[in-house]
Amino acid sequence: LGVGLLGGSIGLAAKSSISGCKIIGYGHRTSTLDAALARKAIDQAFTRPEDAVRDCDLVILCTPVGMFGQLLDQIAPALMPEALVTDVGSTKRSVVQWTEQHLPNPGRFVGSHPIAGSEKRGIQFARPDLFANALCLTTPTALTNPQAVEAVESFWRLLGMRLMRLTPEEHDSLLAEVSHLPHALAAVLATIPSDKALSLCGKGFLDATRIAAGDPGLWRDIFMDNRDNLQDTLRATRGELDILLSLLETGNADAVQAWLAAAAARRQALDPPPR
Amino acid sequence: LGVGLLGGSIGLAAKSSISGCKIIGYGHRTSTLDAALARKAIDQAFTRPEDAVRDCDLVILCTPVGMFGQLLDQIAPALMPEALVTDVGSTKRSVVQWTEQHLPNPGRFVGSHPIAGSEKRGIQFARPDLFANALCLTTPTALTNPQAVEAVESFWRLLGMRLMRLTPEEHDSLLAEVSHLPHALAAVLATIPSDKALSLCGKGFLDATRIAAGDPGLWRDIFMDNRDNLQDTLRATRGELDILLSLLETGNADAVQAWLAAAAARRQALDPPPR
Repeated sequence: LGVGLLGGSIGLAAKSSISGCKIIGYGHRTSTLDAALARKAIDQAFTRPEDAVRDCDLVILCTPVGMFGQLLDQIAPALMPEALVTDVGSTKRSVVQWTEQHLPNPGRFVGSHPIAGSEKRGIQFARPDLFANALCLTTPTALTNPQAVEAVESFWRLLGMRLMRLTPEEHDSLLAEVSHLPHALAAVLATIPSDKALSLCGKGFLDATRIAAGDPGLWRDIFMDNRDNLQDTLRATRGELDILLSLLETGNADAVQAWLAAAAARRQALDPPPR
Repeated sequence: LGVGLLGGSIGLAAKSSISGCKIIGYGHRTSTLDAALARKAIDQAFTRPEDAVRDCDLVILCTPVGMFGQLLDQIAPALMPEALVTDVGSTKRSVVQWTEQHLPNPGRFVGSHPIAGSEKRGIQFARPDLFANALCLTTPTALTNPQAVEAVESFWRLLGMRLMRLTPEEHDSLLAEVSHLPHALAAVLATIPSDKALSLCGKGFLDATRIAAGDPGLWRDIFMDNRDNLQDTLRATRGELDILLSLLETGNADAVQAWLAAAAARRQALDPPPR
């Protein structure tokens, strides 16, 4: 449901990895569906989600997070009793809660978050290897059917992903730190410089701000949905800025270097070891 | 003077673009000088800067900014009267001031800042195309000899660079916005997440924090040298974070989207138009 970068890439990846699978796509724009059909990311297209899910073994929500509630309402009566439902949303508490309220069989819903994608948007950027070697987080709860979790995780594994389980609460708290805060700070960075300063920027600035080019509507949904956690990380950022400001104000060069060295060590540890 | 990433790349680039030029390298470690000789980035090596500059037409300071004062003191008595002196430092007010105090012929000094490099450090990362199509800022003052400016700019042009002139004050203020602040925020971003959160990070986080892996000593010098401007941008960042925090606290989704959209538009404008 939703045949953009992620939905389209799932179609392409599934069709190249799983023999005999049929992909049904839902989208509200026929031009997008036509593009997805032309790229063979989907085999069949519907403009009403309830029509799309009717015969599906596995339903994957790939729209922006803000549409999940309405989408679940629409598909609930049309799902096969044993249909599995998952999603690719960047936040997990709300979708898990909505499924428990809206789906006739919430045990067959397994929250997923494949950590893949880019600041680009749309079927034209979809590619079959988007998920290869990337991490997929699943967020089963006490209500989730264990076989449903296994089945959904097997699907992501067939697309080449590594799996990790978290609670929805853990997920949203951790992702605020490594995804939603970075987006907010990249946006701040893109906002502050004057036009003249921007005209001088180098590769470092472009890399540091690339994610800020992401779709504002998509990120509005993520920010609003996870705003308690995001607020916590923004306050932590303010605290860290105050630390750096006070080191600069006192002119303590050694302390500035120690502060930079701690950050550099943490960042360097994320790079693969040199060959 | 200094044969690391920038000094070594200048040697490689000059030797591939300018026929018959001879490159003399200074470094305080013989192992670095040996590596630079082996890569043919330099033709001759000295471990005392005053020995290195004695017969040079153009002297380029490529050490960390914090060493410039001492280095200028050491080379001043050894320079040929008509020698041109420039540098590749990331800040410009202090080096310009030092040259006016330390050099016998300050009119022959032209501050330069080639906006090229990376978070990597050392002669092993040097490459002859590091400067191709990149921007080089020069910061002549009323004391600078106009022919010296032309000559230094011609040198950078031979290495493939585009040129722009700024006052030292403009330079340091603008670079705080597009280079020093981004480094500080990347370091903050690398500092805040828990180890568990870091283990989930994707490409977006890695790109946004890459510059934070840069050499802490080098960046300490830059931060300390430009700390008034950096403090201003850090305070502006705090103000922008407070704006976002208040939008999130009031739950104003439209305003959050407008804030994100403004940042996305500014960032998108920096990308080359799609083919």
